[in-house]
Amino acid sequence: MVLSSWGCAAPGGGNSNDAEPLTIARQGSFFVGGRNLKSDNLSLLPAYAPSGTIAVEQMYVHFQEPVAATRPPVVLVHGCCLTGKTWETTPDGRMGWDEFFVRRGFPTYVVDQASRGRSAADPSSIVQVKAGRAGADALPQVFGAAQEGAWTIFRFGPEYPKVFPGMQFPLEAQAEFWKQMVPDWLNALPTPNPTVPALSELAQRLNGAVLMSHSQSGIYPFQTATLDRRGVAGIVSIEPGACPAAASDMRPFAGMPILVLWGDYVDQSPRWAPRLKQCREFVEAANKAGAKAEMVMLADVGFPGASHMLMQDRHSLKIGEWLAGWLDRHVAR
Amino acid sequence: MVLSSWGCAAPGGGNSNDAEPLTIARQGSFFVGGRNLKSDNLSLLPAYAPSGTIAVEQMYVHFQEPVAATRPPVVLVHGCCLTGKTWETTPDGRMGWDEFFVRRGFPTYVVDQASRGRSAADPSSIVQVKAGRAGADALPQVFGAAQEGAWTIFRFGPEYPKVFPGMQFPLEAQAEFWKQMVPDWLNALPTPNPTVPALSELAQRLNGAVLMSHSQSGIYPFQTATLDRRGVAGIVSIEPGACPAAASDMRPFAGMPILVLWGDYVDQSPRWAPRLKQCREFVEAANKAGAKAEMVMLADVGFPGASHMLMQDRHSLKIGEWLAGWLDRHVAR
Repeated sequence: MVLSSWGCAAPGGGNSNDAEPLTIARQGSFFVGGRNLKSDNLSLLPAYAPSGTIAVEQMYVHFQEPVAATRPPVVLVHGCCLTGKTWETTPDGRMGWDEFFVRRGFPTYVVDQASRGRSAADPSSIVQVKAGRAGADALPQVFGAAQEGAWTIFRFGPEYPKVFPGMQFPLEAQAEFWKQMVPDWLNALPTPNPTVPALSELAQRLNGAVLMSHSQSGIYPFQTATLDRRGVAGIVSIEPGACPAAASDMRPFAGMPILVLWGDYVDQSPRWAPRLKQCREFVEAANKAGAKAEMVMLADVGFPGASHMLMQDRHSLKIGEWLAGWLDRHVAR
Repeated sequence: MVLSSWGCAAPGGGNSNDAEPLTIARQGSFFVGGRNLKSDNLSLLPAYAPSGTIAVEQMYVHFQEPVAATRPPVVLVHGCCLTGKTWETTPDGRMGWDEFFVRRGFPTYVVDQASRGRSAADPSSIVQVKAGRAGADALPQVFGAAQEGAWTIFRFGPEYPKVFPGMQFPLEAQAEFWKQMVPDWLNALPTPNPTVPALSELAQRLNGAVLMSHSQSGIYPFQTATLDRRGVAGIVSIEPGACPAAASDMRPFAGMPILVLWGDYVDQSPRWAPRLKQCREFVEAANKAGAKAEMVMLADVGFPGASHMLMQDRHSLKIGEWLAGWLDRHVAR
């Protein structure tokens, strides 16, 4: 193939040799959702007016489309205390899933959750309290995840700084990884998180997309399908913080391909083991209601040692390849 | 050229037909700068520890490299109340300068300023005040820019909602534009802004780059060159909020190509007219000290009607083309 040495798209739209240049049909970014809010607490600075309108609750979306998409669009949604950066270049400098899925023929959409990253938060209550117009209780419940605590949550090891044997996260690049973490405004937002209706709007605009979530956002694709099934072609929930309760209404999931995917060491984690159990109950209940749901432990399909941040682990692209195969087998075009 | 119909790179590394697919040699993201901070005020939630280490002041960078770069790297730095989104797809859905410059053979780096977008802010003082451990004065001086006030600052018109005759910003897409705006933490940061040393580190890593700033960040490339000239191949300051004082040390700019670029209606703006005057004085002083500085009004080179957000105006790609030509004429490889 002379053409491929020029970095052209391989037949089928993907770029199968990851060392070659990447050819994309279209890329860009836009916002979905959001609403205008009038506030009298926007600024205490003379150069900026205290009162006026701002847009809040919108969701930033960055996308790349392969030249000839052969596979369904995927929407990548990050977890707690992180942004869309989760899916980009790994801390040790390898290709992220944002590019990997494009190279495999999937139009790929990476979002920043509402009030995180490039999706604006509302500063009003901070300004209001600083001005003495409200008490400290009015402040948003913003939090940062400390590296020491996140170490355990991300299952790099049982406790900071111990490491699980065989764990695949590139810890030599952890300083770069910690820089990915941002303050989390989740608890300052209404329920459901505005990211959920925005995901629904995006999935419908795309006329069908696989919603791929992680951790804190694990429940969002399920909430999206419950809000409106249209556009939800499938769900991949990676290490979800929660699955829908087994006793809840399973009708939104009838016929829907669903993968709940887990890394390693889950049973050794007091934080994650109950979530695994709860998701197993969900998968059983969903399948009784006609869903095509599956729970997979990566160690059982050839990938032991996966951390909670498995899209950045040393074997992240092999896991991505397996995931692309799962989507081929389960999600209709 | 049969090859070009396959979306291959044009000779010289650029993709000269903007309707064709884009071929890039490499893309990705990383952080520059940052430091670890220990805090006892990270969280009031039982699920996240109150104490521990977070990384702050790092700068997020997203980049794309053309197949055969024929022109120097450019680093695009957004202004007040915005993020790197400034340089991406315009509100009315046209190509942003992030892609345009790649197609013209420039390796292109888009940053989020420290404490903005995907570059983490420090939530400690919010948590501290909410917990009653400090008074409201300790809160960060965060502000949001109201749409009504920003209208005048961005020179869409003399006052909201009046429009300057012939103004080129795509106001029919303003709802999408307002969603780009985020709370601004600038005043909660040390001086110089941590973005400045991060830009210096980035420019040196790139072994020479043009620093292109906008508005609030207009002064940053000058501060970067003053901190350390290494790596600063040239400066394009678009509608800077300030230029260096004419009485300040001009030695860092000796021999340096500098463009201070302005849109239209500046003389009609009480906010901007003094800044134009101040920058004119800087350019004169810099040139006396051996700089290769130039101030250009876009209306004088064939582009009347440019707003403050000129990289998103209807004629943004024509302005970009002019700018690429300026860089060819003034910045050495």
